Amino acid sequence: GVASAQSSVTLFGIVDLAARSVKNGNAGSIKSVSPNGQVSSRLGVRGVEDLGGGLRAGFWLEGDLSADDGQAAGQSWQRRSTVSLIGSFGEVRLGRDYNPVFNTFVSHDPFAYVGVASTGNLRSRFYATPVGNAGLAARNNNSISYFLPAMGGLYGQVMIAAPEGARGNKYTGFRLGYAAGPLNFSGAYGKADQTGGMVDDATSLIFGGSFNAGFATFHASYEQADYSTTKRKLATVAAVIPTGTGAFKAQYAKASGATLIGLGYVQGLSKRTSVYTNFGRIANKGNNVYTASPSGPAGMRAGQTSTGYDVGIRHDF
Amino acid sequence: GVASAQSSVTLFGIVDLAARSVKNGNAGSIKSVSPNGQVSSRLGVRGVEDLGGGLRAGFWLEGDLSADDGQAAGQSWQRRSTVSLIGSFGEVRLGRDYNPVFNTFVSHDPFAYVGVASTGNLRSRFYATPVGNAGLAARNNNSISYFLPAMGGLYGQVMIAAPEGARGNKYTGFRLGYAAGPLNFSGAYGKADQTGGMVDDATSLIFGGSFNAGFATFHASYEQADYSTTKRKLATVAAVIPTGTGAFKAQYAKASGATLIGLGYVQGLSKRTSVYTNFGRIANKGNNVYTASPSGPAGMRAGQTSTGYDVGIRHDF
Amino acid sequence: GVASAQSSVTLFGIVDLAARSVKNGNAGSIKSVSPNGQVSSRLGVRGVEDLGGGLRAGFWLEGDLSADDGQAAGQSWQRRSTVSLIGSFGEVRLGRDYNPVFNTFVSHDPFAYVGVASTGNLRSRFYATPVGNAGLAARNNNSISYFLPAMGGLYGQVMIAAPEGARGNKYTGFRLGYAAGPLNFSGAYGKADQTGGMVDDATSLIFGGSFNAGFATFHASYEQADYSTTKRKLATVAAVIPTGTGAFKAQYAKASGATLIGLGYVQGLSKRTSVYTNFGRIANKGNNVYTASPSGPAGMRAGQTSTGYDVGIRHDF
Repeated sequence: GVASAQSSVTLFGIVDLAARSVKNGNAGSIKSVSPNGQVSSRLGVRGVEDLGGGLRAGFWLEGDLSADDGQAAGQSWQRRSTVSLIGSFGEVRLGRDYNPVFNTFVSHDPFAYVGVASTGNLRSRFYATPVGNAGLAARNNNSISYFLPAMGGLYGQVMIAAPEGARGNKYTGFRLGYAAGPLNFSGAYGKADQTGGMVDDATSLIFGGSFNAGFATFHASYEQADYSTTKRKLATVAAVIPTGTGAFKAQYAKASGATLIGLGYVQGLSKRTSVYTNFGRIANKGNNVYTASPSGPAGMRAGQTSTGYDVGIRHDF
Repeated sequence: GVASAQSSVTLFGIVDLAARSVKNGNAGSIKSVSPNGQVSSRLGVRGVEDLGGGLRAGFWLEGDLSADDGQAAGQSWQRRSTVSLIGSFGEVRLGRDYNPVFNTFVSHDPFAYVGVASTGNLRSRFYATPVGNAGLAARNNNSISYFLPAMGGLYGQVMIAAPEGARGNKYTGFRLGYAAGPLNFSGAYGKADQTGGMVDDATSLIFGGSFNAGFATFHASYEQADYSTTKRKLATVAAVIPTGTGAFKAQYAKASGATLIGLGYVQGLSKRTSVYTNFGRIANKGNNVYTASPSGPAGMRAGQTSTGYDVGIRHDF
Repeated sequence: GVASAQSSVTLFGIVDLAARSVKNGNAGSIKSVSPNGQVSSRLGVRGVEDLGGGLRAGFWLEGDLSADDGQAAGQSWQRRSTVSLIGSFGEVRLGRDYNPVFNTFVSHDPFAYVGVASTGNLRSRFYATPVGNAGLAARNNNSISYFLPAMGGLYGQVMIAAPEGARGNKYTGFRLGYAAGPLNFSGAYGKADQTGGMVDDATSLIFGGSFNAGFATFHASYEQADYSTTKRKLATVAAVIPTGTGAFKAQYAKASGATLIGLGYVQGLSKRTSVYTNFGRIANKGNNVYTASPSGPAGMRAGQTSTGYDVGIRHDF
């Protein structure tokens, strides 16, 4: 990144492009170049200013980067756009930000919620209609958060998102966690208020934990979404095995109606650059049509299997 | 900002987010997080190159930053995008830029044309149909301006905006001012040519001045827009009272059919960071429905009162 | 540009604005301010990281900058968005990039494919329906390229663009060239697969060369596009005559149905800033309505003449 002398203002980003193939049962396969093989490509500006007396001000503007086609829709800052005041009291943060439930989920997803091996392929449908609105899944506009300061290993967040006149845009959530030595676990709860077509509020609840055993780090999470009489569940287990400058990653997940197996290998070429390959396979049951990536062909029949693999280059700046 | 060694190229911006409530008469109130509590949030790149012999080249690209939702519409440079040649002869500037009348108005608006206390809440409707096109209000595409060089306290601007085949896009305007010691006053005139649905050209005329009395700076302005038989008027008076690291701001404005009272307090935490609160109240008469902010609820009845307040964090980089 | 200490991450761009007039036969003339008098205005971020052992990683994000109106459509990176691994083996590059045929064409166009004097005014229609898709003309999404390493004066590129399920998006092309002393020549071939409305694949073939005679550099190119029974041809010759800190540029081009004369003069004020003027004249035959710029008026009759001139400021950062 480009940093100034004074306080830090940094222009940063990731360009991650992968050659990918996805096969969706009878619908055949599609070859593509995808901007999110290992993580989501992104571009951003962020900074921190030391105000003295332990007080700091900070901002963070980060947008998606559709590096395969130059982002036809134009640069936005929808990944995160916030301003913060940080002190011994903790952090007050306003803007568009990740919600407490997503913060817990992604901290136990070694595939960073993207790519053919990611549990995001199950979870993205998890919060589809009628369970709730998009804000319940990952990010909320118009949010005000308070984060606990460092207190031993305890950490936590409370978030309220202003409805701005649209009742269903209101989101309230909180997260509480504990990290010490090899152990890190947290739980979170979120609620999106009933809006237009909904007959009830929608809620989500998650627990997740990890244990670093030295030769490998193991992760597990369990998430549940409730809306009226609909209840959806997602359980994940994963392992990351470091190999000097690289890492093997493996993951198994079970959602209502589908299971996922994800495998990956990353070879670091420097702290900022790596090459990698991933493989993912989703087996559907009943009426389900989960796929290993949105970049596969449409028209797969219910209950079929979707597989995907890719090989790519990732460069952080 | 991030500045290079050589000549200056700076990545700059402001993230300003406020928790806000606006009550519009019978229509009730809306709570929101707004990206323009004290000033408009923005992101830009600008630079100056010294060409030798007193000649300089400069550019300025600045866009709105909808920091509350990550700017769904994508990053643009519509606040200003210009290239300049600057020398002892003055400045020649091409691109999208502020027009002379707006430059006079905003130099006497202590609320920077945004937020619940701003006279912008009256003026934004001031140039609505049928008085003229958006270019008459604030900025013009395809403009060519000439700015006077420093000559004692005298300053001035002449602007022409190319119509590019759409007659009503043509804008011509000029501004002349004088600043010396505690005194600063200027006047400006602008004209947008008649286009499609219009039956006449539209013009605007403004005078503004300020006096720094030490314990406070006082501002006043008078603006008038003419189109066919329609004539709209806006008069403002304001005071800014510095308090060490902060400032009180107060403003009264009277437009055709409505009056505004605005109050604000800013507490600086550093040169680049501040917290603040603002209050605004617009009393409508007759058929008018001016509101203290666009973020309030729709459906207020004519002649009712709109009030708004907010509290926020502003960080410049 | 703004560069970091460590490896290079650079925020760069060009703001180039010109006052322009274009006359299109009976349709009259339009005056405009255009963001591409000498080159296309642009904004970008790029960087290179040294990975050791001769290996480098690089990225390039570059977008159009509609500096005359602040780019209403929002900042994109559609000029180029790529990630690369570079070593003694050459370069592997993924993303949205220029195709081999365009790379040859533009290396022999002293007017950089834009402005009133540019052969781009002929070539942009060259690849219009039914010859093929936009990807055949200049850039391709989802591309994977391999570039030869430095091998004497030899250079070359092979590109495949992934169709992503839309057959016509598939592009395959290659380029081979040789540069030594005053001489530089290359040839390239590209093919866009038949898609929806097409009855055949579309192909393009180009040869170009230049010779630096000291007092001037001379360029020539010949390009041919084939689709079903349609065959379009474009031949260009050009000269660039340096004058100390400036340069004269002259160009003649002949397409099927039209000829172009382009003249320009650039006066450098520094390595990064220049002022310039250009003149272009296109004489149409038969049914053709090529124009000296898209910023002229619509409605010219077939076979008429279009002329344009501009004067502008260009600033690189």
